[in-house]
Amino acid sequence: GFIWKLSQELNASVVFAEHRYYGTSLPFGNNSFKDRQHFGYLTAEQALADYVLLINQLKANYSCFASSPVIAFGGSYGGMLSAWIRQKYPNQIAGAIASSAPVWLFPGLSDCNGFSMTATNSFLKYGGENCVKNIQLSWSNIVDIGQSIDGKELLTHMFNICTPLTDVQNIIDYLSDILGTISMVNYPYPANFLLALPEWPVKYLCTNLSAYDPQQPVVTRISLLAKAILSLTNYTGNQTCLDISTSSPSLDTTGWDLQTCMEMTTPMCASGPVNIMPPLNWDLNSFSISCQNRFGVSPRVEWPKVEFWSKSVHTITNIIFSNGEIDPWSALSITNNSYVPFATVINISDAAHHLDLRTPNPADPQSVIKAREIEKQKIIQWIKEWKIKYKLLKIFNGIRSFISLLDYLG
Amino acid sequence: GFIWKLSQELNASVVFAEHRYYGTSLPFGNNSFKDRQHFGYLTAEQALADYVLLINQLKANYSCFASSPVIAFGGSYGGMLSAWIRQKYPNQIAGAIASSAPVWLFPGLSDCNGFSMTATNSFLKYGGENCVKNIQLSWSNIVDIGQSIDGKELLTHMFNICTPLTDVQNIIDYLSDILGTISMVNYPYPANFLLALPEWPVKYLCTNLSAYDPQQPVVTRISLLAKAILSLTNYTGNQTCLDISTSSPSLDTTGWDLQTCMEMTTPMCASGPVNIMPPLNWDLNSFSISCQNRFGVSPRVEWPKVEFWSKSVHTITNIIFSNGEIDPWSALSITNNSYVPFATVINISDAAHHLDLRTPNPADPQSVIKAREIEKQKIIQWIKEWKIKYKLLKIFNGIRSFISLLDYLG
Repeated sequence: GFIWKLSQELNASVVFAEHRYYGTSLPFGNNSFKDRQHFGYLTAEQALADYVLLINQLKANYSCFASSPVIAFGGSYGGMLSAWIRQKYPNQIAGAIASSAPVWLFPGLSDCNGFSMTATNSFLKYGGENCVKNIQLSWSNIVDIGQSIDGKELLTHMFNICTPLTDVQNIIDYLSDILGTISMVNYPYPANFLLALPEWPVKYLCTNLSAYDPQQPVVTRISLLAKAILSLTNYTGNQTCLDISTSSPSLDTTGWDLQTCMEMTTPMCASGPVNIMPPLNWDLNSFSISCQNRFGVSPRVEWPKVEFWSKSVHTITNIIFSNGEIDPWSALSITNNSYVPFATVINISDAAHHLDLRTPNPADPQSVIKAREIEKQKIIQWIKEWKIKYKLLKIFNGIRSFISLLDYLG
Repeated sequence: GFIWKLSQELNASVVFAEHRYYGTSLPFGNNSFKDRQHFGYLTAEQALADYVLLINQLKANYSCFASSPVIAFGGSYGGMLSAWIRQKYPNQIAGAIASSAPVWLFPGLSDCNGFSMTATNSFLKYGGENCVKNIQLSWSNIVDIGQSIDGKELLTHMFNICTPLTDVQNIIDYLSDILGTISMVNYPYPANFLLALPEWPVKYLCTNLSAYDPQQPVVTRISLLAKAILSLTNYTGNQTCLDISTSSPSLDTTGWDLQTCMEMTTPMCASGPVNIMPPLNWDLNSFSISCQNRFGVSPRVEWPKVEFWSKSVHTITNIIFSNGEIDPWSALSITNNSYVPFATVINISDAAHHLDLRTPNPADPQSVIKAREIEKQKIIQWIKEWKIKYKLLKIFNGIRSFISLLDYLG
C-alpha cells in the first residue's frame, strides 16, 4: 500500500507486526481460543505492549534504528491501535496515522445506527433511491418467502447456497453483513480486500438491482437481489456455491469476535424509514448472553473507555485521523477536529474504508491524493520535531555533564 | 501536610482517594487477599483507572469541578502513581508532584545496593563512622550469640522481644527493616510517620550506639544496639515489649507485599565494606519462590516496565520528581534531570522520605522550603497552561462552528 511507497521516499523501514492471536501468532497454538485461561491474553493493551517491546528490541539490536523516530500506522482496528499507542506511549511513537479507525466504537460513544446510516447514504449516492428502496423492501419479502419449506428451498436455489437453508435469519444475517462489507470496500477500482470485487461495487450491485419493476412479482425482486449479490461474491467466477457462514472469506474473524465479547464491544442497530439494513435493536444484555454462550465471557464495557480516554482526547498531538466519508465505520471515528484541536482530522470524500492506505491508483479521487500528501507532510514534520527534541536532549545532557564536571573539579 | 496549606493559597479542592485493597477499600471484604481470583484486581494500572473514573465522576456531578484542571500528588508509591497517571492520562492530569517516588524500583533499572548505600551514607552523615562500624559488626555478633539456646534467650531479653526468639534471622530481619525505616523518616523534628520518633532519629540512635568502646565485650555492643533501638521503637513509652513481626506498626503491609510479588518487584541487596545492612543477595528466582509460597503468584517483571516506560521517559512534561538526598528510596528514583529534560527534578539536601509533602515546620531545612516554593510555582504554571489550552480549544471550536454555519448558509 501507500506506506511502501512513502517509506521509499522518506528512506524509512517498514515493520509489520502481526497482532497476537491473529494469523500465525497464536500463543498457545491450536489451544489459543480454548478457554479464558488461554485467550485471556488477547487484549489491546497487551498488543500495544508487544509493539513497544518489539520497537525496543529492534532499537537495541540494530544500531541503525537506535535513535530512529517511529511512526505508527494502521487502518480500521489497526488504526485504533495506532492512535492508542501514540496516546499511551508518546515516548516511543513520534506520530501516528489512524486511518478509518473507529476509536469511538464503544457503547455510549457513538450512535449505534451510525454504521447502517452511513452505509445507506453511500448506497443512495452510488446506487440511487430505487436501489435502497428495493433492498429495504427485500427483508420482509425474504421473511415471507422463507416461512414455507418450499420458500426456503426457493431461497436456497436463488442464492445458490451451499447447504440447504434451515433458518431464514441466516440468509438475512449474511446479506446484511455483505452489504456492510460492500459499502466498506466501495473502492473506485477492482480490489481484493475482504473479497474480490469490481470497481465501485455498490454501483455494480445497484445497477443490477435497480432493474426491478414494482409491477413484477416480489419473487423477482429477491431473484434480482440474489443475482446482484452473487455477481459480486462470485466476481472471480471461482465459486460453485454461496457459503453464507462468512461474508469476509479472507479474514478469520474469531479473534475479533472474541475481542468484541471482551473489550471491543460495538453497539450496532438499524432503524429509520430509509435504511439498507434489516431492522435491528442493540441490547448489551442479550449481546453479553451470546458472548457467554459462545466464549464463556462477558464484555468489560467500562475498562477500555477509561483506558483509551473515551471522547476526552483534546490533549493528543501528532495523530492523523483519516476517514472515508462513504465508509460506514466513519460514523464511529473522530471526524470532527473540534474534539482533537491539536491533532489532524481528514475526511476524504468519495473514499471507502482506509482508501488512503491502499496503493495509489489512477482511479483515486483527488481527495485521497490530497489526504496522502497531508499525511506525508505531517510525518516529515513529526520526524523533524522528534530529531530536534533528541538534539535538544543531547545538548541539555551535555550542559549538565559539563556542570557536573565543574562541580567535580570544585 | 503541605498540600492542605497549598490548596488554601490556590483555592483548590483536595481529594484523597484510598487505593483499592488498602485501608477500608477492600473489594471483597475479608476475602480480598484470599486467592488470585480475589486479589488479582490489585494492580497499579487499575488503581490509576479508579482515579480517572473518580475524577470523571466528580467533574460530572459537581459543576464547580467541570472544567477544573487536576494536579496529581503523592509520596513514595503514591508519588509513583502520581507520575504514572500524568504519563498515561495527560488528558486528565494537568501536572503531577511525585515526591520520593521510586519509579525505577523495577529489576534492571536501579542498583539493588542503592537503598542500603544511601541509608549507610545517611548514617555516616548523621551518626558518624563509629556508629556505622558498630552496626556493621553487630550482624555477625548477633549470629554468633544466637547460635546457642542461651544466646537466643539473651537476645530475647536484651531486645525485650514479645515472644521468645526461635530463629536469629527474625531479629536480623527486624533490625535491618527498622534501620531502613529510621533512615527513611530521619526528619528534623519529632514525627509519627510509620512510628513515633524523636527529631533526627538516626542521630538519636547513633548517639546511644557510639558509646561502645571496642575494649568492652561484644555483648555490650549488642546490648547498646538493643537499648538504642528500643529507645526509638518505644519512644512514646507505651510498649511493653518489642513486636518484631513488623517494623512499621502504622502500616498494613500485606497489600504492598502482594504488589511486590505481582508487579512492583524491587530488587534489594546489601554488600560492600561499609554498609549498615546485613549482607544480602538479590535473587529473582528465590524471591519468586517465596511469593509462590506466600501468595501463590510469581512476579510479572517485564509488564510494568513496558507499561510505565522504564527509563525512556524523556518526553514527559509537567511532572516534578522531588527527592530527599538522605532518603534511601532516592536511589530508585529519578534524581538526574538529564533523563527528564522537559520535567523537573528537585534533589533536597538534608531531606528524608517525602519531607516536602509534610506540614511545613520551623525545623525544615532551607532546601525543602525552596523545593515547596518551586512546586507551588510549577503548579500555578500548569494550571495557567491548562486554562489557556481550554480557552484555545473553545476559540477553536467557535471558529469551526462559525465556518460550519457559513457552510450551512451556503
